[in-house]
Amino acid sequence: MAEKVNTSISPKRSLELLSQREVEQLQRSSAADHNLYALFRQCALAILHSGSNSDDANSLFETFKDFDIDLIQQDRGIRLLLKNAPGNAFVDGEMIASSREMIFSALRDILYSETERNSKWMDLETSSGITDYTFHLLRNARALHAGEKPNLVVCWGGHSIPEYEYDYSKDVGHELGLRKLNVCTGCGPGAMKGPMKGATIAHSKQRIQNGRYLGITEPGIIAAEAPNPIVNELVILPDIEKRLEAFVRVGHGIIVFPGGAGTAEEILYLLGILLHPNNRDIPFPLIFTGPKESESYFTQLHEFIGQTLGIEAQQKYRVIIGDSEQAAREMARGIEEVRDFRVKQNDAFYFNWALTIDYNFQIPFEANHENMATLNLHADLPKHELAANLRRAFSGIVAGNVKPSGVKAIKDFGPFKISGDKTIMAPLDKLLRGFVDNKRMKLPGSEYVPCYEIVD
Amino acid sequence: MAEKVNTSISPKRSLELLSQREVEQLQRSSAADHNLYALFRQCALAILHSGSNSDDANSLFETFKDFDIDLIQQDRGIRLLLKNAPGNAFVDGEMIASSREMIFSALRDILYSETERNSKWMDLETSSGITDYTFHLLRNARALHAGEKPNLVVCWGGHSIPEYEYDYSKDVGHELGLRKLNVCTGCGPGAMKGPMKGATIAHSKQRIQNGRYLGITEPGIIAAEAPNPIVNELVILPDIEKRLEAFVRVGHGIIVFPGGAGTAEEILYLLGILLHPNNRDIPFPLIFTGPKESESYFTQLHEFIGQTLGIEAQQKYRVIIGDSEQAAREMARGIEEVRDFRVKQNDAFYFNWALTIDYNFQIPFEANHENMATLNLHADLPKHELAANLRRAFSGIVAGNVKPSGVKAIKDFGPFKISGDKTIMAPLDKLLRGFVDNKRMKLPGSEYVPCYEIVD
Amino acid sequence: MAEKVNTSISPKRSLELLSQREVEQLQRSSAADHNLYALFRQCALAILHSGSNSDDANSLFETFKDFDIDLIQQDRGIRLLLKNAPGNAFVDGEMIASSREMIFSALRDILYSETERNSKWMDLETSSGITDYTFHLLRNARALHAGEKPNLVVCWGGHSIPEYEYDYSKDVGHELGLRKLNVCTGCGPGAMKGPMKGATIAHSKQRIQNGRYLGITEPGIIAAEAPNPIVNELVILPDIEKRLEAFVRVGHGIIVFPGGAGTAEEILYLLGILLHPNNRDIPFPLIFTGPKESESYFTQLHEFIGQTLGIEAQQKYRVIIGDSEQAAREMARGIEEVRDFRVKQNDAFYFNWALTIDYNFQIPFEANHENMATLNLHADLPKHELAANLRRAFSGIVAGNVKPSGVKAIKDFGPFKISGDKTIMAPLDKLLRGFVDNKRMKLPGSEYVPCYEIVD
Amino acid sequence: MAEKVNTSISPKRSLELLSQREVEQLQRSSAADHNLYALFRQCALAILHSGSNSDDANSLFETFKDFDIDLIQQDRGIRLLLKNAPGNAFVDGEMIASSREMIFSALRDILYSETERNSKWMDLETSSGITDYTFHLLRNARALHAGEKPNLVVCWGGHSIPEYEYDYSKDVGHELGLRKLNVCTGCGPGAMKGPMKGATIAHSKQRIQNGRYLGITEPGIIAAEAPNPIVNELVILPDIEKRLEAFVRVGHGIIVFPGGAGTAEEILYLLGILLHPNNRDIPFPLIFTGPKESESYFTQLHEFIGQTLGIEAQQKYRVIIGDSEQAAREMARGIEEVRDFRVKQNDAFYFNWALTIDYNFQIPFEANHENMATLNLHADLPKHELAANLRRAFSGIVAGNVKPSGVKAIKDFGPFKISGDKTIMAPLDKLLRGFVDNKRMKLPGSEYVPCYEIVD
Repeated sequence: MAEKVNTSISPKRSLELLSQREVEQLQRSSAADHNLYALFRQCALAILHSGSNSDDANSLFETFKDFDIDLIQQDRGIRLLLKNAPGNAFVDGEMIASSREMIFSALRDILYSETERNSKWMDLETSSGITDYTFHLLRNARALHAGEKPNLVVCWGGHSIPEYEYDYSKDVGHELGLRKLNVCTGCGPGAMKGPMKGATIAHSKQRIQNGRYLGITEPGIIAAEAPNPIVNELVILPDIEKRLEAFVRVGHGIIVFPGGAGTAEEILYLLGILLHPNNRDIPFPLIFTGPKESESYFTQLHEFIGQTLGIEAQQKYRVIIGDSEQAAREMARGIEEVRDFRVKQNDAFYFNWALTIDYNFQIPFEANHENMATLNLHADLPKHELAANLRRAFSGIVAGNVKPSGVKAIKDFGPFKISGDKTIMAPLDKLLRGFVDNKRMKLPGSEYVPCYEIVD
Repeated sequence: MAEKVNTSISPKRSLELLSQREVEQLQRSSAADHNLYALFRQCALAILHSGSNSDDANSLFETFKDFDIDLIQQDRGIRLLLKNAPGNAFVDGEMIASSREMIFSALRDILYSETERNSKWMDLETSSGITDYTFHLLRNARALHAGEKPNLVVCWGGHSIPEYEYDYSKDVGHELGLRKLNVCTGCGPGAMKGPMKGATIAHSKQRIQNGRYLGITEPGIIAAEAPNPIVNELVILPDIEKRLEAFVRVGHGIIVFPGGAGTAEEILYLLGILLHPNNRDIPFPLIFTGPKESESYFTQLHEFIGQTLGIEAQQKYRVIIGDSEQAAREMARGIEEVRDFRVKQNDAFYFNWALTIDYNFQIPFEANHENMATLNLHADLPKHELAANLRRAFSGIVAGNVKPSGVKAIKDFGPFKISGDKTIMAPLDKLLRGFVDNKRMKLPGSEYVPCYEIVD
Repeated sequence: MAEKVNTSISPKRSLELLSQREVEQLQRSSAADHNLYALFRQCALAILHSGSNSDDANSLFETFKDFDIDLIQQDRGIRLLLKNAPGNAFVDGEMIASSREMIFSALRDILYSETERNSKWMDLETSSGITDYTFHLLRNARALHAGEKPNLVVCWGGHSIPEYEYDYSKDVGHELGLRKLNVCTGCGPGAMKGPMKGATIAHSKQRIQNGRYLGITEPGIIAAEAPNPIVNELVILPDIEKRLEAFVRVGHGIIVFPGGAGTAEEILYLLGILLHPNNRDIPFPLIFTGPKESESYFTQLHEFIGQTLGIEAQQKYRVIIGDSEQAAREMARGIEEVRDFRVKQNDAFYFNWALTIDYNFQIPFEANHENMATLNLHADLPKHELAANLRRAFSGIVAGNVKPSGVKAIKDFGPFKISGDKTIMAPLDKLLRGFVDNKRMKLPGSEYVPCYEIVD
Repeated sequence: MAEKVNTSISPKRSLELLSQREVEQLQRSSAADHNLYALFRQCALAILHSGSNSDDANSLFETFKDFDIDLIQQDRGIRLLLKNAPGNAFVDGEMIASSREMIFSALRDILYSETERNSKWMDLETSSGITDYTFHLLRNARALHAGEKPNLVVCWGGHSIPEYEYDYSKDVGHELGLRKLNVCTGCGPGAMKGPMKGATIAHSKQRIQNGRYLGITEPGIIAAEAPNPIVNELVILPDIEKRLEAFVRVGHGIIVFPGGAGTAEEILYLLGILLHPNNRDIPFPLIFTGPKESESYFTQLHEFIGQTLGIEAQQKYRVIIGDSEQAAREMARGIEEVRDFRVKQNDAFYFNWALTIDYNFQIPFEANHENMATLNLHADLPKHELAANLRRAFSGIVAGNVKPSGVKAIKDFGPFKISGDKTIMAPLDKLLRGFVDNKRMKLPGSEYVPCYEIVD
């Protein structure tokens, strides 16, 4: 049985202080904002669970259904009172500093997202309004560092991966860290944790005491991919699209490790943006890399991208197999280019304002049967729009695989039906089958039952 | 003729970064928020003028009427472009660091006050809502330090004072600094600057590198009392009442140096709060101190307080004449009590939530002839209400003396008429005459023409 | 073939600055101090080699016999010019910060040891004089931290160990780091590196930015056990006995992982000290720990200690198998006791002055045939003297196994002959045979030919 | 009567830790090093006296003849036990941090000077040996900062000066600080304190938290010119010549304020060095500056320099009267040149190795009747030698005026007799008479009786 701990923690940093109104907003007893409280409780639970290896959100919620977190007015101000908290965030009864910090980060982001969303100044109906919103959330979380040279490498990839892929991601992180680069990932274990761990050791060797391990997540995913405790800056964006925008606007380059459908979704999102005519001349280093054993993942993807989005799309990234040093060196060089470009354009280093992200990349895609069935997947679409729609297809599949709402929809109504041009659908089918064959669609151990069906 | 400088400055700290929307809000060309822009320009001008000794806001505005500040999209993000800026904020063409910082502080506070004021969460119609608002502004300005022992001494007093009073205020600041206490004032020269300067030297002797010199001001006063460059944290609250509330909630004790009507206003504000029945048991060290030469200021005030508010009010403070060491020692002791009390009550160190401040202390008092004429100044009022009304009387007099709107009202309609019980009005009249006799009603050199008239 | 790099590095910290005299002392061309130069070159080579996995000092010296390091007067002062340096200390041509730092640490320690040794104040003929010498070297290296609570755990154990032992040592380091403890080892790979790596990750989780990874070595061993790059404080003591004294005087507790004869030597050294009548009441947490698979190492040692030094010796340590958390928790508790004891005794936290270390523990033992043959290994010796002599026996065996001088002596004159009481010699023989059987006497792969012979 | 305090203080920094041998060296009871103890006691007393305004060393020693300082083994290591210490180094019974630090600095320097002096490596018989010695003492005191741009301005001038000169020196310090320059002086009040105080305020305005206020003194002068508490790095060199060498080798430029004979001595010392043929091309900004009221001091000096050392000497400095901003701007510009020169020459920033200082500038000049009488003051000497001898003449006069040994010699044997070429002696006589007339030869208030006589 899981160990459970009762304790209380208090704010240590100025940003963690709360006003009376905010206390009321988040106190369990205050009915008005019960959703906000539920969101906070869920994020806190995920954070406290972080050391664990399971990514089964449902079982987490079940095991700790008696977990309770509440704000109390006590001991020199506000305290958070925790009951039946997962034991693995504690050392000899004391909460690990990173967990404490992250719980207060969650509190900060949940409150501020809500406040900003309701601001009369905020306009979430326009593309630039959403970008401003994302900027405000990141700034409030201190994730935008003025006066720092570009050095932030976003790492994407699977959270449930074999050991050799994990070790490889650690190697890449180590090589990035030796080159004084920082790491940003989507939180969680696997390829989200490995690069941070490697970079931590390398930063220690390079005597870098303020290395950044930035984790960007959203409430829907945090339970399944709890932030690993190396994350020293946690930002919780309100939904998956804001989170993706945050990645591409704060990161100076992206490394993709092998993953599954979720990773493919992220790649298509990014290609969709980079293929946008406005973005063609903006340098954005993008590297797909993995150990020799995982070569096929990228071979298949590369083929799929060539067949659906064409050669131009293939030229937006470099595939580097089994050479962590080369991958890091290439990234360092790419980031130098980013730096030079921004200096020339008088662009900010800390936020990629110049990148055009279409409104339809910014708003949530609801993965239901109707939306999936009506996706426009035709070859004559502009490539960046096709990429956007393919990304949605993958998004739906990820939801059908792991997100509670998606899983339920599949259970109730059967698999999603996806249709489109044969020249698109055939490669898609092949890619997805490849994922299934390579056990990339589900946790190792369980048999995968597809949540989608490709129809003509 | 005043030296004028053209330059541009860029944000150096993360909090100084702006979103596109905020840029638009503050750009000169954006008509929608012209008031906001005007406010910002005025604050920036006052800050840049800071080294100067003149406190004549009108002449400042006149001399630098061609001063221009604008946001531009250039050089890796946002820059502030300044034209015809006062030269005394520059050393060999480079802006002094403290001025640069303070301009961005002004920008931060003006934008945030506006955003918060418009938040659907904010309720400025209730006392607790206003307190929350003040808390939010202070927190956003990083003026609330979690985890620090009580150590912040607010110093009030005249900004236009003779040299012996200035030197004495420096001595007191030095003694406070030697006792490892920090200083908060209302910005400006005179008794606002002396204690900070003294504390700077003393902190240097005590090897305290992060001494706080917190300046709290508001747009209406900043031009006349520009923040001195030692201020290393500047907060601009939206109006005088929020500013006063900020003083009493973040400070752990208050020292009052000799001043004029403005200082008397602040004292009455504070006594009004401390006399509130809810606050009777809350320790709040309050010391009136000055050099031997200025003894009469406090003798007169003490007498006035005794005659109008009674002995209880007189017991809320200690008068210490000509002994800076004693004043500091007494304050250090008082702050120890505050610490013990808050520990016992589980109160926060960084914000005095426990203090009751009535709604009528929190809302602006408009100094016009009608409001002045209808002030209730009767002896049978509860003492804290009488103190509140007396404070308003002084507030009106200060406005009539120096604030543009008040000066104009006096010019147009003659002096304010104030009436009330004789037992109140006689001492008031005596006190005000004393101020006039001691040249405490106006800058040295000019003849004072009273802006008020006491009627039966 | 090994990659070789030419480069030059300059001092970055004030302690790294050199006077003209010191430059001359260490410049290659200056004949007078050629030994000092040779020593420095050898240490620098070992440091640069550090990432590598080989611990074969001879092959290192052979491979890099053309390595050259020299002081030059250039570029704003002194620079170190390196030719044909091992490539693995470099990232894209730039030396890793930790290697740079460590080379200057070597320079500092070599110069200072020499200066101090020749000081008229220094008396190396007395026990307290040697302790002072060690203290001075440690202080000059900034390894003594005033005002810090006891938190330094020394980890001993084999440098050439199987992966499961390495992983276990990492786990223990992680658990120590989570408890905010720092790690000190003898440099080198294996059990010297694992705990530091684990602690680095844990300190990152606990937001400890100034974690200490103190490596204490000596010129004779540094080539075989090059400091791993996580070491952020390197101290080179002049010989093995000063190094051992440094361990027990700066460490607040010691954890021993499985090793070979060298580790046994260290254990006997420590037991010899702890058994000294003067030291009986001084708390000194000592834990032997390893993974389940390595249990026999400690079983054998425990038995040997019982048979030769008796139950009292066995009570000086705790054996914890396969429970890294328990080992760390026990150590944390033990260090609390150390703290309480020193507070009570008014002892320094940073240096264990109170411990008596006999002069014969402080002076080098020369491992030659005569000294080995005349070791007094009789059961009627006081236990702490017997421990001292047993330690010498192991020291000789280690020398015969791996140190150039010892290896040559064995080659020239055959194995060392050791004799003594049967009650001592039988368990000794058994223990050594156990080490051989468990491949603990030599690097994995090669056949071990004993360098000693037990004679009656 | 002077307030006296009993207390004990403990080391807080690693450098302040002592070995047993060092404790014995400095313990009062240890007869062997009684001189060392006496030296330390005297320095400690001077430091504790620092706030005071008297510079009468004798009266200090008399008042506090029962002052006692001793090392004790207590409270987690070493403590310094103080009895009957001057009360003005304490605030409410607690010693001011800067005093505590400086006492440990004295302890450090006294011990280390002694150790180094006795090192077999140290050669005090050669010029380069003495320079190395000075370098070692400065390095050990952490006064050499690697990796910092040239920014250290040495300020010389009188310690007993009128208020307008003190205020002017404060202004200059303020202007230097605004230009991000640091200040080094010879400790003591007057022109030694003013620039540091001004720079402290300016550094605060420029947000420089690690401003350097370096005080360089020697045991013979420290009692008369106690380090003011703003000094945050104190170095005690063993004698006046090492101290002067330290000034010119660590400083990047020198500003001279008005003083008396001591200041003239320093100027002649420096001109002697700058006139050395080897030094002709080395940039060394030297500025004589003072308020309008003090113009005559520099007029007289300038005339004297012209008449004795010639135009070349006059071109080594600039005289700036009554313009603190100009003086600072000129110094900043000069230091830029120093920087460029050292970059070009690959010279160190932290120590001016390139400057030739002749051996006879480095060894103490004993001010007795014989040495004074035999000074070679002839016009045909090379200018730098003549400057050296003139400097000695002034040195003797200073000793005869204020140093106990000199004062006694004068008392016993009458005034020093000085002779030389008329072209030298006449201007010398005139200058000295000018000093007397301007009350620059003694503290204000007392009548000056010359300690010298110019003979033909």
